[in-house]
Amino acid sequence: MQKEYTVGIDLGGTNTACAIVDRSGKIVDSDSFPTASASIEQWADRLAGSVVKMAEACGISDQIIGIGVGAPCANATTGCIEAATDLPWPSPIPLAGLLESRFALPVTVTNDANAAAIGERTYGAAKDVDNFIVLTLGTGVGSGVVCDGHLLSGTRGFAGELGHVTFPFASGRLCGCGRYGCLQTVASGKGIVNTAVEMLRSSDRDSILRKVNPSALDPKIIEQAAMKGDPLACRVYEFTGECLGRAAAEFAAFTDPELIILYGGVAKAGELLLSPMRRAFDNAALHLYAGRVRFITSTLPEAEAALLGAASLPYCNK
Amino acid sequence: MQKEYTVGIDLGGTNTACAIVDRSGKIVDSDSFPTASASIEQWADRLAGSVVKMAEACGISDQIIGIGVGAPCANATTGCIEAATDLPWPSPIPLAGLLESRFALPVTVTNDANAAAIGERTYGAAKDVDNFIVLTLGTGVGSGVVCDGHLLSGTRGFAGELGHVTFPFASGRLCGCGRYGCLQTVASGKGIVNTAVEMLRSSDRDSILRKVNPSALDPKIIEQAAMKGDPLACRVYEFTGECLGRAAAEFAAFTDPELIILYGGVAKAGELLLSPMRRAFDNAALHLYAGRVRFITSTLPEAEAALLGAASLPYCNK
Repeated sequence: MQKEYTVGIDLGGTNTACAIVDRSGKIVDSDSFPTASASIEQWADRLAGSVVKMAEACGISDQIIGIGVGAPCANATTGCIEAATDLPWPSPIPLAGLLESRFALPVTVTNDANAAAIGERTYGAAKDVDNFIVLTLGTGVGSGVVCDGHLLSGTRGFAGELGHVTFPFASGRLCGCGRYGCLQTVASGKGIVNTAVEMLRSSDRDSILRKVNPSALDPKIIEQAAMKGDPLACRVYEFTGECLGRAAAEFAAFTDPELIILYGGVAKAGELLLSPMRRAFDNAALHLYAGRVRFITSTLPEAEAALLGAASLPYCNK
Repeated sequence: MQKEYTVGIDLGGTNTACAIVDRSGKIVDSDSFPTASASIEQWADRLAGSVVKMAEACGISDQIIGIGVGAPCANATTGCIEAATDLPWPSPIPLAGLLESRFALPVTVTNDANAAAIGERTYGAAKDVDNFIVLTLGTGVGSGVVCDGHLLSGTRGFAGELGHVTFPFASGRLCGCGRYGCLQTVASGKGIVNTAVEMLRSSDRDSILRKVNPSALDPKIIEQAAMKGDPLACRVYEFTGECLGRAAAEFAAFTDPELIILYGGVAKAGELLLSPMRRAFDNAALHLYAGRVRFITSTLPEAEAALLGAASLPYCNK
């Protein structure tokens, strides 16, 4: 039997990356180009040209079994990008249809968090795990939930919006969705910065962060300060990890997961988040779950994770 | 092709009911006997005798394709009853194994809430619904969660313990699980009584319930008072419905359901609970879900619901 390949496409606000990936998760060729185009059709033509060229150069044009696209606000059920604010074209964008007509191959579209979950299951830390949750901690907080080996999709593809579950620990924070107390207001990059600003204001504890103009504070600076042992920066991550652990304790009652994976920019803080998260989870969770869930950060290579997630979609149930 | 039948068994603390049910959900014969037996083996023998007799009388002994059992604290993954406090035998009870050896048929065991969910999907209001949640409101609060047509089970069969998700509106209430604020402390029968007691204490509003000895208050009495328009009793259900709606708003972010079904003794209050629940849900839920979830009470005939739920298990994914 001929070897099978998939195409993974990571559609970002600035750049589009695409790659040809084999079943084991090895990227055999990749390309990238600026997302900005006069129209989505032009973008799709540019992409198709790139993929065809790579496939021909590799001599595997007839061995590609499917195409997966990870994109912001993409809905797996409709195959459309819905209300994406950081793409240069009007929404909804019928992405799956646009690519199917160019490639004559099945196209699976989903949002970044679901792509991350399927990527972890296909190539990463969740390879033999049927029940896990990926929390993507970045500009927002997203999630992909796999239960009984199946990525949850829901009535209209909006299952797993765990960044918008509300908690008392965030009740004073207004979310972009218009509601108060969403997990996202604490565990996103902006949430981390807001926590630091609040802590700097409410204490006179010494901190490297006091030398930074508050408007210039970003998660990277706070992470670096914490890595150097700055007590206030460490406390920011401790608080964030505690919140994530308490949130995970509630999430466990839904799908009885064995593994929770943190993914995305904020997750780079690693044990700074994971240690308090584990502790808070075990304290807060129902006895059925306490002590029984593993917490890790993504094991996919950072530069390739989004591409691998997208390339894994054709293997997914959806 | 011969017509197919299943056996449904409802194992309760006091009585065991069993029935032979056809594919359409019609009970063709049923029996019941006291659960109390010297041993679980004796109980299984008694049950086997009853089922064999019914099947022979109906002339369908070779048309039974499987057996389903709904039981308290039963775990679908292990086939065991784990730590049931209201059964007369020590736990764990290897129920599936005990019955498989007597019937030479596949046996599916699950807890009452999951049986209710599969019952609704097979014979009830969720017949064509792939994404729904059943909340069983009785002595405790249980749940069965169906997402993308699949009953969630989880790593060890403990998915869907939504009665133990905690909420600020219940933060002052200690749950039997040892934690504070579980949904169960508000939405169970005992929760309803506690709400009534608290409201009677904290207001001097006139109420029929003041004529009842507080230790004799039960959900039935409160429901009857509310049905008669007693303002305090109505307020008890309004508060409970509001809590359920706010809880459901968080649950929606997990599985994007289109339907939430209330089931069990407390659910008999019907619109007294459903109206405030709908209102609270639409106020609290993320815009993706608000206005898009239907709330109803179970449509299965009350006397048969548990048996039909059990009888539907052989048709389930697990």
